[in-house]
Amino acid sequence: MTGSLIAIGIVALAGVCCAAAPADSDGTPAPTNVPGRQYPRIAADLRVTFRVKAPEAQKVQLAPRGNDNGLGAGPFDMQRGPDGTWSVTTPPVRPGFHYYELIIDGFRCNDPNSATFFGWGQHTSGIEVPDPAADFSAAKDVPHGEIRTMWYRSTVTGQLRRAIIYTPPDYDRDAQKRYPVLYLQHGAGESELAWSMQGRLNFIMDNLLADGRALPMLVVMDNGYATPVAAAADRIANAEAFGEVVARDLIPAVDARYRTVANRDGRAIAGLSMGAMQALRVALKHPHLFSAIGWFSGIERNFDPAASHGGAFADATAFNARWRLLFVARGRHESPDGRVDFHEKLQQAGVRHVWFECDGAHEWRVWRRHLHEMAPLLFR
Amino acid sequence: MTGSLIAIGIVALAGVCCAAAPADSDGTPAPTNVPGRQYPRIAADLRVTFRVKAPEAQKVQLAPRGNDNGLGAGPFDMQRGPDGTWSVTTPPVRPGFHYYELIIDGFRCNDPNSATFFGWGQHTSGIEVPDPAADFSAAKDVPHGEIRTMWYRSTVTGQLRRAIIYTPPDYDRDAQKRYPVLYLQHGAGESELAWSMQGRLNFIMDNLLADGRALPMLVVMDNGYATPVAAAADRIANAEAFGEVVARDLIPAVDARYRTVANRDGRAIAGLSMGAMQALRVALKHPHLFSAIGWFSGIERNFDPAASHGGAFADATAFNARWRLLFVARGRHESPDGRVDFHEKLQQAGVRHVWFECDGAHEWRVWRRHLHEMAPLLFR
Repeated sequence: MTGSLIAIGIVALAGVCCAAAPADSDGTPAPTNVPGRQYPRIAADLRVTFRVKAPEAQKVQLAPRGNDNGLGAGPFDMQRGPDGTWSVTTPPVRPGFHYYELIIDGFRCNDPNSATFFGWGQHTSGIEVPDPAADFSAAKDVPHGEIRTMWYRSTVTGQLRRAIIYTPPDYDRDAQKRYPVLYLQHGAGESELAWSMQGRLNFIMDNLLADGRALPMLVVMDNGYATPVAAAADRIANAEAFGEVVARDLIPAVDARYRTVANRDGRAIAGLSMGAMQALRVALKHPHLFSAIGWFSGIERNFDPAASHGGAFADATAFNARWRLLFVARGRHESPDGRVDFHEKLQQAGVRHVWFECDGAHEWRVWRRHLHEMAPLLFR
Repeated sequence: MTGSLIAIGIVALAGVCCAAAPADSDGTPAPTNVPGRQYPRIAADLRVTFRVKAPEAQKVQLAPRGNDNGLGAGPFDMQRGPDGTWSVTTPPVRPGFHYYELIIDGFRCNDPNSATFFGWGQHTSGIEVPDPAADFSAAKDVPHGEIRTMWYRSTVTGQLRRAIIYTPPDYDRDAQKRYPVLYLQHGAGESELAWSMQGRLNFIMDNLLADGRALPMLVVMDNGYATPVAAAADRIANAEAFGEVVARDLIPAVDARYRTVANRDGRAIAGLSMGAMQALRVALKHPHLFSAIGWFSGIERNFDPAASHGGAFADATAFNARWRLLFVARGRHESPDGRVDFHEKLQQAGVRHVWFECDGAHEWRVWRRHLHEMAPLLFR
């Protein structure tokens, strides 16, 4: 944005900055690369090569984030080349979306070659490794819905908050039609942007709708973090603040501004990981607001159908009559603790639910699949 | 997103991650800080302190991006403390939005404490230094419009593209009302997200509308980079590709999906820096599509009213009859070359235009002000 950058802007950057880098024998630039960057590159066998230039650094590493990252365990030492570039090629990786960092002389930072995504509590590098088996989340030539940003005032936090809203492709075509709403939450350290960025929520929904597999619905994504305003008339515990935001502020704002089915039969709430636990908690506390629950890779340790969640599951007959859907899902490579046993205890107690497992660990590949499986079951 | 992170998620992160950090004698965390991060901190006299932990690094610097950055010239050497934190406090800075990097042992990377913004051709750290004189761009308790993301297929590039669209607060209230459209472009190295992120476009428009100072309008922001598909039936030059995207693909998509005033009287095009030059070029090439032009901090070197732009300015009377508004603006601390002389030559040639200058250099503070001044003049 200096003078010289402006001067070359139209001519040079239009060519340099955005030309798709060609595939070659070393692979193809990842779709999450900054336009024009050649690395990271994904080979046909899913080895990934990372490369950065740091001539003055003493040690450079690649650090996949988390205990079971699809890029591998790491950190991987990168090797210095004669020109000061540092490179590493991983063993074949799992497809899907993976967070990672570089470590430059001990300092953890982003890879300037990749897009950043809000995860791990900050703006973190991410890489998408295309998955031939995940065609359901690809951007196809089907009608596309929109992602909208809605600002609303929260009485619970006293702040202006931002919700992200998916509207289906036909939303603006018929001004009379009303739509059910799925409230959909991110995981710990992420934000309201996660499902539309890391999650490819809009493309998953577009494809389901194009195939006639799901009913048209709105999807509302809010930030799962909320701090109650100190001076609130009724004291709200920190752990309850998000649910109260949803019940008191978010749902009324959405129902006021969008053509919703504004009753419990027209509302579901789901989430992943921390968001799964929030979805379950909020739904059970506000059963008059929601009729369906989605629980993707949460944890319910020491679950007791008779006592947990204030006894909400104690009377299976009553629970089954009240809830139209309880969708419980995990990745097969996640720990079974608090997941498989949660499902089994529900089953033993006669609590009706859909149990779904798919390949993958605690990662977005799994949660995209969970959404894809659950959405067709909603609002039937 | 590990198990332990999940476990602490609801309880701890709700408190730790999102509590507003308190102001103290060393200042206040910048609004662009990642939630919970104490640095960068802005003091009352607008000195800014940056701090990161890098115990193993040999040298750490703060590097404001660009020749006339509001944070100062830099790079500033950061000083190592006994615990391995590195800090620097700048002299008083200019208010507004500034891009910057850290340099860790020669490696340029982002500050993990700050949000990233797409600028300088990659995801770059940014800091917002609140400007008491820029109340016009603050998020106030007025009705808020939405920011929408629209995907559309481009025949020019052969790709799916993403446009960002501001809809005014009343857009969904009256299904019959139609709206004029401002097409608004970012600068070199930025993206279609820049005006809604760095530019605070939605809050500027919300405030103007609440004050009754501008007419309700849509604002469409697209990516200024476009590479023509090689196999296009008619060869499109690289430098013409963006304009052809606008004319052939973007405008038809917007007019098909939104309730627009779908004629030249209902369309304006503006941009900043590289986007200013694109706006002028596209408008003059397609005068049947637009009736108004906004030029924020572009460069028109060696401008000749008789010959430049194919003689579009040669007949001032015809130009003045054709164009409802030509808004030409710069920051007073930018180079006058290709800016002040462009205005003076227009004036000498009798080409009617609005000339506007405000404090600031080649930076977002200036372009927010330009939009705020131009928008009330549009579609009158």
